[in-house]
Amino acid sequence: MSLDWLSAPCAQPDLAILGEAADRQEQLTKPPGSLGMLEALAVDLASLQRTPRPAVDRVWISVFAADHGVAAEGVSAFPQVVTGEMVRNFATGGAAISVLARTLGANLEVVNLGTVNDPGEIPGVRREIIAPSTANFCVEAAMTVQQLDSALAVGAESVRAAKAADTQLFIGGEMGIANTTSAAALASAILNEPPSCLAGAGTGLDSSGVSHKVTVIERALARHADARGALEQLRCLGGFEIAALVGAFVAAAQTGIPVLVDGFITTTAALVAVHIQPDVHRWLLFAHRSKEHGHARLLRALEADPVLDLGLRLGEASGAATAVPLLRLACALHNGMATFAQAGVSTA
Amino acid sequence: MSLDWLSAPCAQPDLAILGEAADRQEQLTKPPGSLGMLEALAVDLASLQRTPRPAVDRVWISVFAADHGVAAEGVSAFPQVVTGEMVRNFATGGAAISVLARTLGANLEVVNLGTVNDPGEIPGVRREIIAPSTANFCVEAAMTVQQLDSALAVGAESVRAAKAADTQLFIGGEMGIANTTSAAALASAILNEPPSCLAGAGTGLDSSGVSHKVTVIERALARHADARGALEQLRCLGGFEIAALVGAFVAAAQTGIPVLVDGFITTTAALVAVHIQPDVHRWLLFAHRSKEHGHARLLRALEADPVLDLGLRLGEASGAATAVPLLRLACALHNGMATFAQAGVSTA
Repeated sequence: MSLDWLSAPCAQPDLAILGEAADRQEQLTKPPGSLGMLEALAVDLASLQRTPRPAVDRVWISVFAADHGVAAEGVSAFPQVVTGEMVRNFATGGAAISVLARTLGANLEVVNLGTVNDPGEIPGVRREIIAPSTANFCVEAAMTVQQLDSALAVGAESVRAAKAADTQLFIGGEMGIANTTSAAALASAILNEPPSCLAGAGTGLDSSGVSHKVTVIERALARHADARGALEQLRCLGGFEIAALVGAFVAAAQTGIPVLVDGFITTTAALVAVHIQPDVHRWLLFAHRSKEHGHARLLRALEADPVLDLGLRLGEASGAATAVPLLRLACALHNGMATFAQAGVSTA
Repeated sequence: MSLDWLSAPCAQPDLAILGEAADRQEQLTKPPGSLGMLEALAVDLASLQRTPRPAVDRVWISVFAADHGVAAEGVSAFPQVVTGEMVRNFATGGAAISVLARTLGANLEVVNLGTVNDPGEIPGVRREIIAPSTANFCVEAAMTVQQLDSALAVGAESVRAAKAADTQLFIGGEMGIANTTSAAALASAILNEPPSCLAGAGTGLDSSGVSHKVTVIERALARHADARGALEQLRCLGGFEIAALVGAFVAAAQTGIPVLVDGFITTTAALVAVHIQPDVHRWLLFAHRSKEHGHARLLRALEADPVLDLGLRLGEASGAATAVPLLRLACALHNGMATFAQAGVSTA
C-alpha cells in the first residue's frame, strides 16, 4: 500500500498566538465572554492560522461526488441517476452549494470520482473517475485497496490546490445517492454502535424506509465483521467521495489549513480521519448540527460543539458554507473592535 | 396621552406570495425541506416584503442608549459611566455593533436618549435626550407619561428614517447599564412570573450579585403591583431605550418592515409590543438565543425559534447583526437555485 503519507505528522497550532488572541478578547470593549462562540472561533482561527489577526477571506470548497453500489438495495428516496445530474448542476451554478459559493466569493471545486450516470467532461468539474460506483458492500468490500488509495489521494490533491491558492479555510462536501447508508454503516463499525443509532432519513425516507436501511446496514456489518481499523472499515463500507474527504482532512491537518466540517457524511469522514491520526482533530471546526438522525451522535463522539443548528440535511458542503459568514464576523470583531484603553471605556 | 398611534393597524403579510414562495422551495434542486430554517426564513421574508424574491441587502440598525435609575441599587458589574462612554464608542467605530454594521454594509443609527455621563454632541449620534436617566423604579415609576410618550416616539422616528432609506430589514439594539434588571422586572410583571426565572448575570454578575438583583426586582414589583397593562408596566419598570424599541417594533409592523429581534432586552421590548398589539408578532424574526438566563423563557412566551444559539450576551444588536448573513444566504438560495426542471435533475 502507498498510504504511508497518511501517517506523516500534522502541523502544529501556535499556542503563543492562542494565548495572545485570548488576551486580546478580554481587552475588547465588551463584557468578557459576551461574544460567546464568536470569541472562541476567532481565537482558534488565530492559533491555527498562526497569526494574531485571523481571516477567512479565501475559502476553498471541494465537493466530491461518487455513486454507491449499495444503492441497489433500495436505500434512497432518490434514483441513482441524480448523482451525475447533480454534478452537472454543481458546475452550472444551480445547486445550493453553487449559489452559496458564489455569494461567499469562495472557490468551488467539483470532483467526480465516478457516477453510474456519467455526465462526461464538464467545464468546471475535475474528473477523477475511479469506477462507475463502489461495489455493493452487502456483498463485498466497497473498494479495492487500489481504489481506496486513489480516492484518498484525490482528496489530498484538492488540499494541495487549496494550499497553492493560499486558502485560509478548507471545506469538503459530498454528493452520492445512498451515501448516508455508507456513512451510517462506517460510523456504526467505528463506534461499535447499532445502526439504528446512526441511520436516518437521508434525502427523505419514511420510517419503513429507515427500518429497511438499518437492516441493510446490519447485513453489511455482519459481512465485514472482520474489518479491523478505521482505514479497512472505510475500504469495506465507505465510498469514493467519503475516502476523498478523509484524505483531504488528513492532508489539510498536515498542511496546516483549518477545516470546517459540514454534516453527517463529512463528519463520518472526519471521524475516520481522527481515528487514522488523532492530531487531525485540532484542525477541525464543526459548522452545524444537521437534522440527519445520527449526526448528533457523531458530534458527541468527536466532542464537537458546532456553530449552527438550522435543521439542515442537504450535504454538498451547504451547512459549512452557511457558517462561513459567522467565522468572517468573528474575525472582523477580533481584529476590528477597540480595546477598553483605546476607546476610553471603563472596565468592571 | 398622545399614544393613539400605537393602536393603528399593522401591515399585512402577502399570503399569496407566501404560498408561491413555499411552492418554489419544493421545486429547487434539493430534497424538500433539506435547507431547514433557511427555507422558512426565505418564505417568511418573501411574504413580509411582499415579493417573490426577498432580499436583505439594505439593513437598518438603530441602537438606543439610555441610563437607568435602578443602577443606584448596585445591580450591574459595570459602572454607570459606561453607557455614555459606549455611545461614543458606537459612533467612533470601536464597538462590536460598529464593526458588525461596517462589515455587513448596514446602516447604523446611534440614538442617545439620556445618559448620566453625557458625551454631548457626537457626529453620528442622534441626540434625543429625555432625561439623564429614568427614575429608580424601586422608589417611583421609571418614567412619566410624557417621558414614555417621547421615548416611544423616538423609536417610531427611527422606523420612519429606515422606511425613507427603503430598508428591507430593521434591527433594534440597546445599551444601558442596569437594563437587564429593567427588562427582567418588566418581563416578570407582564408574564406574571417570579424574577428568579428572568433575572440573570447581565454583563457579568456572580451568583450573589444575581440574588441581589432578584431582590431588587421583587421590591420593584411590589412597589408597582397596581400597574395594569403592558404599556403602564413599561412606564413603571422600563427604560427609555426599551420604550424606544417598543415604539420602533410597533411602527415597523405598521410600516411593513420585517424586524430581526436581538437578545434579552430587545425580546422584552418585543413582548411589550406584542402585548400592545398582537399583530406585531407576525413581523418579528428572532435572531438568537442569548446566554442571559431569562431569554429562553421570553422566547418560549413568544413561541420564537431563533436562528442562532452562540452563547452571546452582549446586546447592542450584535446578535441580530450576526444573523444577517444567514438571512442573506437564505434569500440567495431561494432566488438563485435552479429548479429540478431547469437543471434536468430527477425527483424522488
